[in-house]
Amino acid sequence: MTVDSPLAADTRLTPASDGVFEGSLSDRWNALGGIVNGGYSVAVCLQALRAVLPHPDPLTVSTFFLGRCAPGPVELRTDVAKRGRRVSTGEARMIRNGAEVVRTVASFTDLGAWNGPSAVLATLPDLPDPETAIDPMAGVRLPGVTITDRVEFRYARLPGWRRGRPSGDPSAEFWIRFTGGRDATVFDLPMLVDAAAPVVLDVAGVVGSATVELTTHVRAAPAPGWLAFRAATRYVGGGFHEEDVEIWDSRGELVAQSRQLAVVLAGSPSTSDRTDG
Amino acid sequence: MTVDSPLAADTRLTPASDGVFEGSLSDRWNALGGIVNGGYSVAVCLQALRAVLPHPDPLTVSTFFLGRCAPGPVELRTDVAKRGRRVSTGEARMIRNGAEVVRTVASFTDLGAWNGPSAVLATLPDLPDPETAIDPMAGVRLPGVTITDRVEFRYARLPGWRRGRPSGDPSAEFWIRFTGGRDATVFDLPMLVDAAAPVVLDVAGVVGSATVELTTHVRAAPAPGWLAFRAATRYVGGGFHEEDVEIWDSRGELVAQSRQLAVVLAGSPSTSDRTDG
Repeated sequence: MTVDSPLAADTRLTPASDGVFEGSLSDRWNALGGIVNGGYSVAVCLQALRAVLPHPDPLTVSTFFLGRCAPGPVELRTDVAKRGRRVSTGEARMIRNGAEVVRTVASFTDLGAWNGPSAVLATLPDLPDPETAIDPMAGVRLPGVTITDRVEFRYARLPGWRRGRPSGDPSAEFWIRFTGGRDATVFDLPMLVDAAAPVVLDVAGVVGSATVELTTHVRAAPAPGWLAFRAATRYVGGGFHEEDVEIWDSRGELVAQSRQLAVVLAGSPSTSDRTDG
Repeated sequence: MTVDSPLAADTRLTPASDGVFEGSLSDRWNALGGIVNGGYSVAVCLQALRAVLPHPDPLTVSTFFLGRCAPGPVELRTDVAKRGRRVSTGEARMIRNGAEVVRTVASFTDLGAWNGPSAVLATLPDLPDPETAIDPMAGVRLPGVTITDRVEFRYARLPGWRRGRPSGDPSAEFWIRFTGGRDATVFDLPMLVDAAAPVVLDVAGVVGSATVELTTHVRAAPAPGWLAFRAATRYVGGGFHEEDVEIWDSRGELVAQSRQLAVVLAGSPSTSDRTDG
């Protein structure tokens, strides 16, 4: 028996007509400014696709964000592009107030049903015991943000931008889990890859990031426990940046990989953030 | 004045009706087995999207491959999801013999029109002069393959799989360009990221790879000259692998980044490949 994750209750959909579903974006997964977290929107799309595709698990999920989106009722319109033996593919369009706000195309598979050669050419993040690591959100309230009540983080040390001094190194490794420790499923991973603050905040002059497109590969079902998160941005320029994320589980297995292309929001950091500057 | 790339002539489309275009997949970009190269299919989709989106350049392009596709007539059905100030987004579905074979969603922008902070946290591939480097395809004929007549490569040394001895290190850096030296444009980059043999061939037991999904970020217009290509696979398992690619231009600027999720084709390498084993 699987215990539902905290996200499951907020991504439930009701069938409306053939391939069309109705749901509601909760206000419990809000990012800065009270807009819904992008990864949460992806998770809602995946529930619609799960209902129309024959395979059980998301494998590769690509989402284009078409507009800022507040909590409230949404409609999901799906179509199935291909039902294959190993992989099936479909699309979900999320409509809010008559306008399409999110488009997701995803391939599903049965993770664990296939075999073959294996090789891992990277190592999992080297992190201290989460019990002794730092909660970067302790005592912090960000305007409109609620996702930090649902997801918690543990860092070896606070990132530069959190200390008001961007380090110039837009990368980070830390622990992540649902607040309180409820375990994550494969359907939570495409939300979790997008749940942390963007590491590009550690580049001087960057005050935020707006995702254009996010692709996640789900590679395995996560084992129970804290998940190790690795994020890196390597190319910032021309008004855009990418961010790569890996999530490793407590067995030391890579369970998700993501990459996004985002608009760089430039400006001066607000002086209120410079608590020790 | 821009000189058309060799790809431009083979990706021309004719408007058929509102948002629908007709074209033909040439047999000049075939991969192994005489099927069209995936990146070439993406390039055809991008010509359809270029005709319907207001921005001039591809920025992020995500393609799902739904079936093997032989050369021949195709129809491209597009829709525009969003026309924004900085970014516009649309979708192209490629229909071949009545079946959808490729689905591409892409955001376009005006590359070079936007500014902001910049940072590069990686270095370009360290390669010998292309004039003294090795052509890995010299004297090689692969069954059905024609793309190697259109694109050429120069390696510092032959990859392990080409010598019949997979090295266990699925990564490579090499030069790439159109055969004879015609310069690449932004519309060629989403094909070029997919034009080389997959580096996963350097994992023992892997004999091929079939792409499920490919995402490319175009970050800048390439300068004339040879392009430096970096490819790496880090996670092979459960029947799937990813491949990351970077393309750097002759100014030393990153012009494209891609990641794909692919099915691992396992088996024993054919003994005819073991020329020096």
